[in-house]
Formats: sequence, structure tokens, C-alpha cells
Amino acid sequence: MKRIGVLTSGGDSPGMNAAVRAVVRKGIYHGLEVAGVYQGYQGLIEGKIKDLEAGDVGDIIQRGGTKLYSARCPEFKTDAGQEKAIEQMKKHGLEGLVVIGGDGSYQGAMALTRKGFPCVGVPGTIDNDIPGTDYTIGFDTALNTVIEAIDKIRDTATSHERTFIIEVMGRDAGDLALWAGLAGGAETILIPEESYDLDEIVDRLKKGKARGKRHSIIIVAEGVMSGNELATLIEEKAGIETRVSVLGHIQRGGSPTARDRVLGSLFGARAVEVLLEGEGGKAIGMRNHLVVDYDMTKAFTEEHDADMTLYTLSKELSI
Amino acid sequence: MKRIGVLTSGGDSPGMNAAVRAVVRKGIYHGLEVAGVYQGYQGLIEGKIKDLEAGDVGDIIQRGGTKLYSARCPEFKTDAGQEKAIEQMKKHGLEGLVVIGGDGSYQGAMALTRKGFPCVGVPGTIDNDIPGTDYTIGFDTALNTVIEAIDKIRDTATSHERTFIIEVMGRDAGDLALWAGLAGGAETILIPEESYDLDEIVDRLKKGKARGKRHSIIIVAEGVMSGNELATLIEEKAGIETRVSVLGHIQRGGSPTARDRVLGSLFGARAVEVLLEGEGGKAIGMRNHLVVDYDMTKAFTEEHDADMTLYTLSKELSI
Amino acid sequence: MKRIGVLTSGGDSPGMNAAVRAVVRKGIYHGLEVAGVYQGYQGLIEGKIKDLEAGDVGDIIQRGGTKLYSARCPEFKTDAGQEKAIEQMKKHGLEGLVVIGGDGSYQGAMALTRKGFPCVGVPGTIDNDIPGTDYTIGFDTALNTVIEAIDKIRDTATSHERTFIIEVMGRDAGDLALWAGLAGGAETILIPEESYDLDEIVDRLKKGKARGKRHSIIIVAEGVMSGNELATLIEEKAGIETRVSVLGHIQRGGSPTARDRVLGSLFGARAVEVLLEGEGGKAIGMRNHLVVDYDMTKAFTEEHDADMTLYTLSKELSI
Amino acid sequence: MKRIGVLTSGGDSPGMNAAVRAVVRKGIYHGLEVAGVYQGYQGLIEGKIKDLEAGDVGDIIQRGGTKLYSARCPEFKTDAGQEKAIEQMKKHGLEGLVVIGGDGSYQGAMALTRKGFPCVGVPGTIDNDIPGTDYTIGFDTALNTVIEAIDKIRDTATSHERTFIIEVMGRDAGDLALWAGLAGGAETILIPEESYDLDEIVDRLKKGKARGKRHSIIIVAEGVMSGNELATLIEEKAGIETRVSVLGHIQRGGSPTARDRVLGSLFGARAVEVLLEGEGGKAIGMRNHLVVDYDMTKAFTEEHDADMTLYTLSKELSI
Repeated sequence: MKRIGVLTSGGDSPGMNAAVRAVVRKGIYHGLEVAGVYQGYQGLIEGKIKDLEAGDVGDIIQRGGTKLYSARCPEFKTDAGQEKAIEQMKKHGLEGLVVIGGDGSYQGAMALTRKGFPCVGVPGTIDNDIPGTDYTIGFDTALNTVIEAIDKIRDTATSHERTFIIEVMGRDAGDLALWAGLAGGAETILIPEESYDLDEIVDRLKKGKARGKRHSIIIVAEGVMSGNELATLIEEKAGIETRVSVLGHIQRGGSPTARDRVLGSLFGARAVEVLLEGEGGKAIGMRNHLVVDYDMTKAFTEEHDADMTLYTLSKELSI
Repeated sequence: MKRIGVLTSGGDSPGMNAAVRAVVRKGIYHGLEVAGVYQGYQGLIEGKIKDLEAGDVGDIIQRGGTKLYSARCPEFKTDAGQEKAIEQMKKHGLEGLVVIGGDGSYQGAMALTRKGFPCVGVPGTIDNDIPGTDYTIGFDTALNTVIEAIDKIRDTATSHERTFIIEVMGRDAGDLALWAGLAGGAETILIPEESYDLDEIVDRLKKGKARGKRHSIIIVAEGVMSGNELATLIEEKAGIETRVSVLGHIQRGGSPTARDRVLGSLFGARAVEVLLEGEGGKAIGMRNHLVVDYDMTKAFTEEHDADMTLYTLSKELSI
Repeated sequence: MKRIGVLTSGGDSPGMNAAVRAVVRKGIYHGLEVAGVYQGYQGLIEGKIKDLEAGDVGDIIQRGGTKLYSARCPEFKTDAGQEKAIEQMKKHGLEGLVVIGGDGSYQGAMALTRKGFPCVGVPGTIDNDIPGTDYTIGFDTALNTVIEAIDKIRDTATSHERTFIIEVMGRDAGDLALWAGLAGGAETILIPEESYDLDEIVDRLKKGKARGKRHSIIIVAEGVMSGNELATLIEEKAGIETRVSVLGHIQRGGSPTARDRVLGSLFGARAVEVLLEGEGGKAIGMRNHLVVDYDMTKAFTEEHDADMTLYTLSKELSI
Repeated sequence: MKRIGVLTSGGDSPGMNAAVRAVVRKGIYHGLEVAGVYQGYQGLIEGKIKDLEAGDVGDIIQRGGTKLYSARCPEFKTDAGQEKAIEQMKKHGLEGLVVIGGDGSYQGAMALTRKGFPCVGVPGTIDNDIPGTDYTIGFDTALNTVIEAIDKIRDTATSHERTFIIEVMGRDAGDLALWAGLAGGAETILIPEESYDLDEIVDRLKKGKARGKRHSIIIVAEGVMSGNELATLIEEKAGIETRVSVLGHIQRGGSPTARDRVLGSLFGARAVEVLLEGEGGKAIGMRNHLVVDYDMTKAFTEEHDADMTLYTLSKELSI
């Protein structure tokens, strides 16, 4: 293998740039040429491919977003689109591809691999929802963005003795809500992995007020329902007025935390090694504190599990 | 004057604690006793009044929210409510009161002053909408919170080539939107002080895209319309898809910036001096770089003016 | 067991408050009474012990430092001091003690355990230098403080084409320097675990300049030498002028990151369970992504190992 | 005037990029061509001059440092150096120059103006020490960096009952120390503008300890003495042990605050207007809340005054 490519796909996440930097520099370290593919699979089809030197990925490890850009690409889901992509890669002399993104991006990577073009997946998403890895790149940054928001909202909640509902991202996964709820000292956390009991929620609110708590914070994962829906349910059920804060897209941006930069670096570097070992169809992950690679199909055929011990602990500690 | 009180009222804002600390310590410095009134006018009516020593306001200058809490108090708008308040103040030996809050809070303070109980107003609100002062306590912190959010959103907007609408607070004033838009490099700013032209907005979006801009940021003050309403208008008018981020209550919290701590300190200290000079019915402000006091009625009878030179400049620089 | 105590000892670290909160609330959850010991072992000897209710540890999870304070206590290293401590604990009805601190604090805890008073250790230090756990409470926050500083210094280094030496904490461990160097994109990292080669350092500086790098960042762990000593060595060796930044005590403070809050919560809760299982002389840790307990003596008799794969990776990526 | 240049000189400061962006875009808005001069006066002499379009200064308003770089240039202090610079400017068709920097940079700009080449100065320095303007670009950001550091250090100071000496930048001016000390709630502030009394400092430390204060923060401006010198003085005088933190170069970096971005934008834009009005030899400033221009020589012939009311207030409030 002489020449590989790297692209970012799907929703961007902080730390993707660290992974891109690692792919480029680790590749160069091993004597490879590395090309950046701009705008994800769309750019791959259109041949938006440029050589990257070590200096081209300098000063990006601290930047949010992705310097390679990302894009939706319905065409790439078709056989014709994938053939175009392979044609472009042949034309540009690429022999392997590192795909940084979520499980949707992995499916595209697997399709290319099956057509004889080896791809390796690196988990980049704030949702932490990729089976086979304990952490994804961007999760830690998003999590800290959420707890900074919770800390700010608690100021005003305490001053005014209010109950706040904070809606956080995570798609179908509750990881962001769970970790943020525990770290933010939330009274109640609603996640898709666990059914909720409206009576219990209301009960906790009332008990908290009774023992003099000046604020209550409820974290709801977008995968359960919207913050406004929950506010309506609580209002209808118990006549309790709440304020809603939908954190939205600030969760996707920002300078990556140290951990996301290290994770991106470790994952990007390992992806290059796996390609060099001639193994396409693998995904990189962190499992029990070790960087691992595993069959990429696992990432979109199995289920991601949230760490429910955090859920239990949060309940015990928010008494 | 031997003994004064201090309360915070209306929406909380970062830096209120610096003002409370300044009132207490400046009062003590001048030989006064100072009492804190908890939960605004509601607490005043209910007699939630406690003596504060210098040490009681230690370690609060850096905290968001208000350690004296705040509350709504419809009862205080009535004559009966105000009489109860005066009764409590007499009971607790208070001879003057510093009220930290917005223009609504000033009206209450003016009512007490007219009933013979001298009050001085200190402008605390993130909206920067109080006539007679160039800046209010909390505005600078909220502004920086907004631009941090814009910076984060720009990461993802650039990565995905998207147009974002960011809705910011400010009630009827455009200050927060205006400053944040200029400082955040927004392409378009909508404020209540200036009519908007949907055609022009759409035109700027199209031109930006045409010359290769990867993102567009539109800031809309809540006093104009909601972010979602604007998104609908743009979609209907030009078929351009946008993303909306409603920053919400994070704008009210957070550790105050240096400037808000200094402003709070200056204003709180001056309020004590004005009370000592025997002058109730005054409001404290910053005017042309000087700390001033002025007739409090001005704050709720005149209009606040946004600095429209910033609006013009923003247009010129976001080409 | 009906009643336990908790104290913080040694250098404070962000997240200690989350651990204290977890000990108190988890204890209450299991029907225990929990008392806080103020000012570490010194306070234990002096009987500075107060009951803590669930509400007493509210609103502290986001605070840096330790609400229980810490202190040096040479007296506690003596047999007489330890006897006084046990006397106080008997007097206050304590039957077990959670000690949050570093390896020095563990030795005190082990001494008490050997005298029949069961203690459990929770690793709280920014240095990440406690054998038996992959992470300590406070490391993640300190690490992010360091990379924020590196990011700031890079601004000015790039603007002026300068080489910066940044001295970071860590006592005899290189973890903070290692992680920060990798995450901060440093060209060179000096840690106690690995000998350094001055020729190689100078060589990297020269090569970087030759290929047009506008800045170089060297991270040196305090356990190797001071930043100023290194600057002198480089100046003498190669006549290259550098700037030195000693980050100092800002590394110990600040609101804890999400991860340190979660780690503190997990560790504090587990410490209570271990005490309830009747096992003194244990330390809590995170090992391969699992919360574990292990023989406390391990923490001060074995060696802590830094993750040298990060060292190698950093060299490969900073080409 | 058809074509102007812009450069940054001296120590970099956050917000310089906002000023560069404003010069470029305001210039283009008025139909000018604008060229960036890289690496300050050194680059001017060497002809490192490149045309800048509106898009070239996109996405820089939020960046610390200066995208035009800066450099020392002893040669430019000579007549010969200045002649070379003018030659280059003629060669590149420049008819006016905006110089963003400190008073040293202004002297160079004045020399060029006197040789018939109109220059306008924009005050960019974190030291806030330029006569004729109330604020310089970068001061507000540096100030907030300092108070964040103070807030972090207070965590550990409180936990351990320690006295900290924090040395801050400012060259011969005390502004940074003064504002930071007031905003950070420091017990004592030492600035070059005011003689200090070691007895009084020690006395405050002792009184604070006597009334149970758990920490003391002393801010010393680098223009007075180093933090370590002060620590030695206090140790020798009263045997009181202190910890020293030298904040150093982190004070120069970081994403600019909203205010520094707005200030940079206002100043950069006004500089272009002043050049268009045909007036070289002017400096831009903010005076009593208004953007002004004034004779540039004032900036290096008069004295900068710190706002001593802040000094007095700080003393009154840190009781």
C-alpha cells in the first residue's frame, strides 16, 4: 500500500480534526502518501481529493468541526454512486480509505470494502452510539458543553426557584443525557434505554420542593421526547410550571477536550496500521481501556448499550 | 442613616453578586449596618431580612445568579403590598434600600421612595435596556456567552455548509443581538430597533453562497420574532433551508466577566454613597465612561437607544 | 456499620467535591449517618467533625477545590497522632472512614486500618500517579486546563515565530505532560519515565524551523527539571532562544470536567459499598474501564506506570 | 487613495484579527484595495505584502494572535530601514498604512508619516497603556484570562488556607493588575502607579487570617516587582509563607472577548476612514465611550493614567 485517503462523513464532531491529523502523519511516518477527500462521500464521488502533507494538518488539532468538511450523499447509497467513488479512488491512486464518522458512514465504508476497496472506520460522533467502542470521538467535548450549560442554567434556576427541563442530543442513545445528568447533578434523567414514570418524576419534584431545594434540573434525551413535550406532560399531570432549554447545535461544536484529541489521535493512527496490515472492513474502538479493531458490520448490526450503572447511581445520588 | 438594605429583583444577571458585595462592604466601610433582603420584593413583604457582614459576601463575586435570590411579586404592585414592605423595613430598622434589577424593579423602588422610603436603583439585567446607562450588569457576560455559542455553531455550520439562525434574548432591546452579531461575524442581524427586509436577507444568503462562503449566521433578537418563525419565512420566500438554535436560559447564567464584576462593584458602591447623600429616587449608571446617578423615573419613562453605529458597521463588515 | 466519616487530604483536586457528595448521599441511601471531617487528618485529630445531610452537599458537584478543606499534618504521621484521631472517631461514633487523596493520604488511612479502624481510599490528585488505578480524580480537569493554556500560548508563539517551553505539574509522574503534549500538539515532551536527548530536542527545533513551522511547543514535566533549567540547556547547547511558561497552581483549580465529576461520583459511591462490606484497607480505582477495589498498600508500594504508547504516538505525530 | 496596507506590530493581542478584518472589509466597502503586510515592519522592509480579499479575512474574528504575524525589527528604527519600507510600499502601490500595535509601533508609523507616507495607528496591546485611549484591543481578553486564573487559584487557596501572590503582565502600567484585582476580589493590589507599604500588606494578611479568612490573594503588576521578589519580602518581613503564580504568556492568547472583537472592528474601520480623509499621523482610540482619532505623537509623549478610583474602591471592598 502506497497511498491512502481519509474523509469525514455524517454529523461533524469535535476531535475529528485530531483523527485526520493522525491519519495523515501516521501515514507519512510509515512512508505512505495521504490524500484528503473533501465533503465526505459526495466529494469522493466528485473527486474532491487533495494531497496532504504533515504541515497541512498543523494547527488543526484544537479546532472544532472538520477541516475536510462533511456532507449528505444520498447518491452514495446506490450501487452507481459507489462505483463512481471507486473510479475516483482508482484515478487518484488511492488503495485504502479511512472513514471517520458514525454508523451510517460505516455502511458506506463496508459497501466499498465489499467491492474490493479496503476501508477502515473511525467512530466520530457526539452521540457515543456506535456498538463495539466504549467511546466515540466528540462525546467528551459535547458532554462538557452540556454540563457547562447545566451549570449556567442552575444559576438562574436557583435564583428564581425554578424547575428546568434541558433537552440534549444523542439520537437514539441516552449516553449524553446520562453522563450529563450525573455530572450535572440533575434530579431526573430520561433516556431511551429506560422507560420513565411520570408519577415518579412529579413525585421527585414535589419532594425536592418540600425539603427546600431551590431548583430542579430534568435532563431529557432527544430520543425520548422533546423538552417541550415533557413540559406539557408535567404541566398537565401536576400543574407544575417548568422552563425548557433545548441545547441544540452548540453541542456539536467547540474546541475538542484533551480526551477527544487523544482519542482522535489514537484512533486515526491505529486505522492506518490496520490498513497497512491489509485489513479492510474493520472499525477502530476503545474497549476496556484498550484501542481495538473489530469487524465493522458489528457497528451497524448490533445494539449500542448505555452504561446503566450510571443511571442507577444518578438516582441514588440525587436524593 | 445607620442601616440600609439591599435586594435583587426581576430576572437575575451575572454580576449581581458583585453589586451586593459592594453594597454590603461599602456600607460597612462607611459605618453602616447592611441587611440583605431575600427573594426580592416578595421577601421584603414577608420580612425575609438578614444582617450581612463583610465575610457573608466573600467568595461570591465570581458566582452567577444572585445569592439574595429573586422572585416575582404581583402583590408589591399594589398599594397594600408596598405598605407591608415599608412596615417590614421599619420593623427591621432599615432607612434606605438598594434595589438591583431592571426597569420593572425600579418602578417598585420609586413607589417606596414616594412613600418616604429612599431607594436607589442599580441596573442589573442582561438585556442592557435601561435608559440612562450605557451598560447594565450582566450584559457583558451574556454577550460573551452568546459569542461562544456562535463560535461553536460556526464549527458545524462550516463543516456542513449550512445557514444557521440564532435566536438571542434582549426583550424589546436589540443590544445583545447587535453586539453579538458584530462580534460573532454574523452575516445578518435582526433587531427590534430596525425594520428588516426579507428580500435583502435572502439576497445576502444567495450572494454569500455564490462567492463560496461555507456558512451563514443570522442573529435574530427575540423582540423581532422567534428563530423558527424566521426560518419559516426564509423557507417560504426562497426555499432556503436553515437550522435554528434558540440559545435560551444559558444566556442568564455563568460566572460574570471581569467587566460585569467591576461594573457591579462600581455601581453597588455608588448606590451606597447616593443613599448616604440622602437622595432616594436615583438610579446608578455608566454614562460616557463615568459612573453617574440620575432621576430613576427616567429609566422607565424614556426609551433605551441601541447603538446603531454598530448595526451599520456590521453590515459594512459582513460583505 | 451505622456511621461513617469522609475527609479530603493532601493537594486538592477538582472533582473531590463530587466524591464527597457521593459518599454522603450513597451513605444516606444505605441508611448510614455520614459526618464530614474538615481539614484532613489535622481536623480529624482536632475533632473538626460535622454531620452532613443530603442538602449539605448540594450545589458542590461543580465546584473546584474541596469543601471539606485539606491540610498538612505531620503529627498524624506519629503513632500518638493516629491514636488521637481514633479517639476522636470513637467519640463521634464513626465506624469507618473514606479518605480522598493521594498516596501519602493512603498511608495514613492504612495506619488507621491497621489499628482496627477501617478506612477506604479514593484517589484524588491531578497527578494521576496512584498505582492500581488508570485515572485519579482531578487529572482530566488539570489536563484540560493545561491544553487551554497551550492553545493560548500557541496563539502568541505562532504570531511571533517563537519556541515555548511549558512546565506542567505531575510530581514524579509524566501523565499530565504526556497527555497534554499529545493533545496540545507539542513537538517535544519530557517526562520522568523516559530519558531525554538534548541533541534530539535541538534537532527537532531546527528541522521544524527549516520546514517553515512558525512555532514549537516543548512540554516538560516538573519531575524532569524546571522550564527555566531546560531553557538554559537549550540556549547553551544551540544558542536557541526560548520562552518559558510555568503553569503553576492554576492546574489544581477550576470547575471539574464531566469526567472528573463522574469519576468522583463512582468512586465515592463504591467506597461506601466497600466499607459496608466490612473491608477496610482497600483503595478504589478505575481499571480497564471498570470500577474496582484493591489492597490499599499496592498504591504506595508499587510503581505507577505512564502509558508509554502515548509517548511513542506523540513522537510519530509531531513530525 | 486607491490602495492601502495593514500590519500588526509589537506584542500580539487578542482582537488584532478583528481589527485586520475591519480594515480590509471597510477598505473594500469604500472601493479600496487592501494589502496585508506580514511580520510587521520587518515584513514591510522585506516586501512581504499580499492582497487581501473579503474572504481572506473570514473566520478570523474569533482567533487569538495575529494572522499577519508580528516581529521585532531593529532595522526599522534606522532611517535606512524606513526608506526601504517606503520603497516597498511604493513598489506595491500602497498609499496609506494602518499600523496595529503599541506605542513603540506608533513611533515607527509616525516616522513613515513624517517621510510623507500617511499612517494611522490602532492600539493593540493587552497592557492598556496607550495615552489617548481608554481601552486598547486585547486588554479585556487578557483581563478575563487573569480572573479565570484567579478563580482557579482561589479554589486551591481556600482548600489549603493559603496566601497566593499572582504576578500579572502590564509592563509599566497597572491597569491589568488593577482591574483583575478588583474583579477577582484580591485583598491587595500592587501597581506601578502607587507606592506600596509592606507593613500594610502584612497587616491585611494578619487581620484577614484573624477574622477567619481561608485565603488571601495578592496581585502584583510585573512593573512593580516579580511575584517571587514580593514573596521574599513578605517572608523576611513577617515570616508569612506565600505561594507564587506567574501567569505569563497565557495572558497574550486566547479567543478574543466580545468587547475586544467589537473594539477591534470599530477601530479598524475608523482607521480606514481617517486615511480616506487624508490624515496620516493619527491614532484611533475610545474616549468617554466614543471612537475618536487624535495626534499620534500624544501616544508616545504623554503618560498613560490608570483609573485610580478602581484602586481606592478595591481597598474599600476587600475589607
